[in-house]
Amino acid sequence: MTDEPLRARYVIAAKSAGAAREVAGAVAREQTLECVPGLASPALERRLLGRVGPARPAAGGFAVAIDYAPELVAGSVGALVNLLFGNVSLLRGVRLVDVRWPGPLLARMPGPAFGLARLREETGVRGRALLCAILKPVGLSSRALARQASALVRAGVDLIKDDHNLAEQDTSPFDERVSLVAAAVAEENARRGRRCRYLPHLTGGGARLNERVERLHELGVTGALVAPLLLGWEATAALAAESGLLLLAHPTTSGVFYGRRHGIARTLLQGELFRLAGADGVVFPNAGGRFPVTLAECRTIAARLRAPLGDVRPSFPAPGGGMDLARVRRWRDVYGPDTVFLLGSGLLQEPHLGRAVEDLLRAVEPA
Amino acid sequence: MTDEPLRARYVIAAKSAGAAREVAGAVAREQTLECVPGLASPALERRLLGRVGPARPAAGGFAVAIDYAPELVAGSVGALVNLLFGNVSLLRGVRLVDVRWPGPLLARMPGPAFGLARLREETGVRGRALLCAILKPVGLSSRALARQASALVRAGVDLIKDDHNLAEQDTSPFDERVSLVAAAVAEENARRGRRCRYLPHLTGGGARLNERVERLHELGVTGALVAPLLLGWEATAALAAESGLLLLAHPTTSGVFYGRRHGIARTLLQGELFRLAGADGVVFPNAGGRFPVTLAECRTIAARLRAPLGDVRPSFPAPGGGMDLARVRRWRDVYGPDTVFLLGSGLLQEPHLGRAVEDLLRAVEPA
Repeated sequence: MTDEPLRARYVIAAKSAGAAREVAGAVAREQTLECVPGLASPALERRLLGRVGPARPAAGGFAVAIDYAPELVAGSVGALVNLLFGNVSLLRGVRLVDVRWPGPLLARMPGPAFGLARLREETGVRGRALLCAILKPVGLSSRALARQASALVRAGVDLIKDDHNLAEQDTSPFDERVSLVAAAVAEENARRGRRCRYLPHLTGGGARLNERVERLHELGVTGALVAPLLLGWEATAALAAESGLLLLAHPTTSGVFYGRRHGIARTLLQGELFRLAGADGVVFPNAGGRFPVTLAECRTIAARLRAPLGDVRPSFPAPGGGMDLARVRRWRDVYGPDTVFLLGSGLLQEPHLGRAVEDLLRAVEPA
Repeated sequence: MTDEPLRARYVIAAKSAGAAREVAGAVAREQTLECVPGLASPALERRLLGRVGPARPAAGGFAVAIDYAPELVAGSVGALVNLLFGNVSLLRGVRLVDVRWPGPLLARMPGPAFGLARLREETGVRGRALLCAILKPVGLSSRALARQASALVRAGVDLIKDDHNLAEQDTSPFDERVSLVAAAVAEENARRGRRCRYLPHLTGGGARLNERVERLHELGVTGALVAPLLLGWEATAALAAESGLLLLAHPTTSGVFYGRRHGIARTLLQGELFRLAGADGVVFPNAGGRFPVTLAECRTIAARLRAPLGDVRPSFPAPGGGMDLARVRRWRDVYGPDTVFLLGSGLLQEPHLGRAVEDLLRAVEPA
C-alpha cells in the first residue's frame, strides 16, 4: 500500500483483544484478496491484503482498524460498500463504525450533484430551514393526491414529496400521479405566487427508470425522492451523475444495517455513504419519533452530511418519521437552518392547514 | 382486501402474545398506510391497512402473520421489499420469516428469465451438477486473469465466474478484463472442444451498466454475476427483464438482514426474494465453510429456489464460500444434480488442476 489507506474501524464482539484481532485478520482477508494464504503472490499480499491495527477496548467489544488499499475501490460506490461490508456481513459480531477517507478516493466518488443550494435557489427560501410536506396515504387516487398537493401549496409549504410507499400502485401509477401532482403544484404556484417544489418518488430500474427521469424533466420536476437500498447503490450513484435531478434519499430497509453488534453504524451509512453515493439530501428518523434512535446519533448524521469531505459537496439532513409539530422550534435549534424538515400525517391532520404551516414557518425562523 | 392477501409471518421479540400483537399492529400500519389513525378514510383503512393475525409462541418470541393487500405491491420488486421490510427495518426485534404469495402478485414479478436449463443447453452438461471455478484474486491484471481462465477451461470446469470483488479496479477494468477473459475462454473452448461459459461480474449503474450489457452481448457472453444488493433490487429486476443475460446473484451485504431477532430470514431472502427479483441462480454460503449457516438453512434455500412458485421459473442453487473439495460427493448428495458448485481458492491452489477437476467431475456424477 503506497497511497494513504482507506482506514475502516470495526468494533468486534470478542472476549479478548487477541480474539478480536484474529477475527479482524479474517475480515481483512475476506474483504480484500478473499483467498487462502499462499494463492496470491507475496507482492500482491503486500499490496492488497487489509492491514489490521491494534485492538482497543470499546463498547461492545474491541475496536480494530483495518487499512484497505484504495485501489480496491477505484471509483465505484458498489465496490466501496462491498469492500467495507460485503461478505463480512455474513459473519456475526462485526460492526463498522467509522471510516477515514483518502482524498483521491473521494475525488472519484459521485457525491451530490447539487445539495441544498439548488433547493434554496428554486424556492427562494434563505436563512431558515425548509418545510417539506408528504403526500399520503398510499391508496389515494392520483387526483386525490393532486388535490392534497394543491392544498399544501396554498398552505405555504416549501416542498412536497411523495410518501415513500407511493410506487407503481394501480391506484396512482407513476406517470399519472406525477403528471397530475406536478400540474397541480405548478398551477397553485402560479395562482398564489409561490415557489413550492415537488419531489416525486422515483422508482423502478433499467429502461423504465430512464423513461421516468425523462418524464420528470418534461414536467419541469427538478428533484426526486429515491430509496438507495431499493434502487441500488450503483443506480443511485448513476442517477446522481447522469439524471440532473436533485436526489432526496429515503432510509427504507437501511435499519437492517444498524444492529447493536453487527452491521454499519447509521452515522456512517446515513451520514457518509448515502452522501458519497450522491444523495443531495438524506431522510433519517428523528429522535423522539416512531423509531429508536438517539439525539446524539441524529446530530452526528446531520453534522457529517455537511462536514468537509474532500471535494464532495455537502448533503442536507431531512429528519422525519413522526416529527412532533409542537417541537419544531426545538428541532430548529438542534439542526440549524440548513435542514429540510419532513412533515407527514401530523401536518395533514391539522384542521387549518394554512394556519398550521404559518406557525411552523414562524417556528423555523432563526431565533 | 378482496384478493387473496400477501401473508407475511414475522417473529416478534416480545414478552407476551399481547405485546407481540401490539408491535405487529404498529408494523401493519407503518408498512401500509403509514399515517396516524383517522387520516385515511374508513374505506381506505379497510382496504389497505395490514391485518394482524393471532400471536403464537415461536423461537425468539411470538409469530404473528400480517395480511397485506397485494395492490400495495403492484408489479415492483422494490415495492415488495419495501412493503415486507422497509421502514420496519428501523425498528428492533422484528424478523420476517415467511411469506405466502398470492398467484396474481407472482404473475407480475419478473422472476428468472432462463434458469439452469439455459446453462445446461449452453454447456451440454446433463444429469449432474455443474462446476463453476472463480477467477481470483483481485489485483491480478486482466491478462493474468485470462491466463487463469484458459487453464481452468483446459482443466475442464463447466463455468468460470469472476470473483465478486472484481469490479472496476484499474488493474483489471471491466471492459479490458471481460474482453480478454471471454476471448481466452472462447479460444480454449475452440482448441479443446469444450463448452465452458464465462460469467463476468457485471457492475455499475445507469448508462454505464447498459453499455456493459451491450459489450457482453458483443463478446458472446450470455450470463453474468450480479450483486442485487449493490446494483439494487430494481436494477436486478430490470436486468432480468431486459438484458437477455442469465443472472447469477451474489449475496454480498445480505448478511445484515440475517439477525437472530431482526431482519429477514435468509431462507426467504435468498430462497425466494432473489428469485422473484430475477436471479437465475443464487450464490449462498454453504454449511461448513467460512460463514455461520446451518445445513438445514442451506437445504431450505435450495429447495425454495426450485419449488413451484406460480409461473415464476425456478432458480438454481450455487453453494460456495469455502467448499471443501474432498467433500463434494457429500454435497452432491445434499443438493442433487440441479446445482452449480462454486470452487474458489481451494481449486486454484491444486498443483494439478486437470486432475483435480477430473476428480471433482467424477464426484458430482450421480451415484
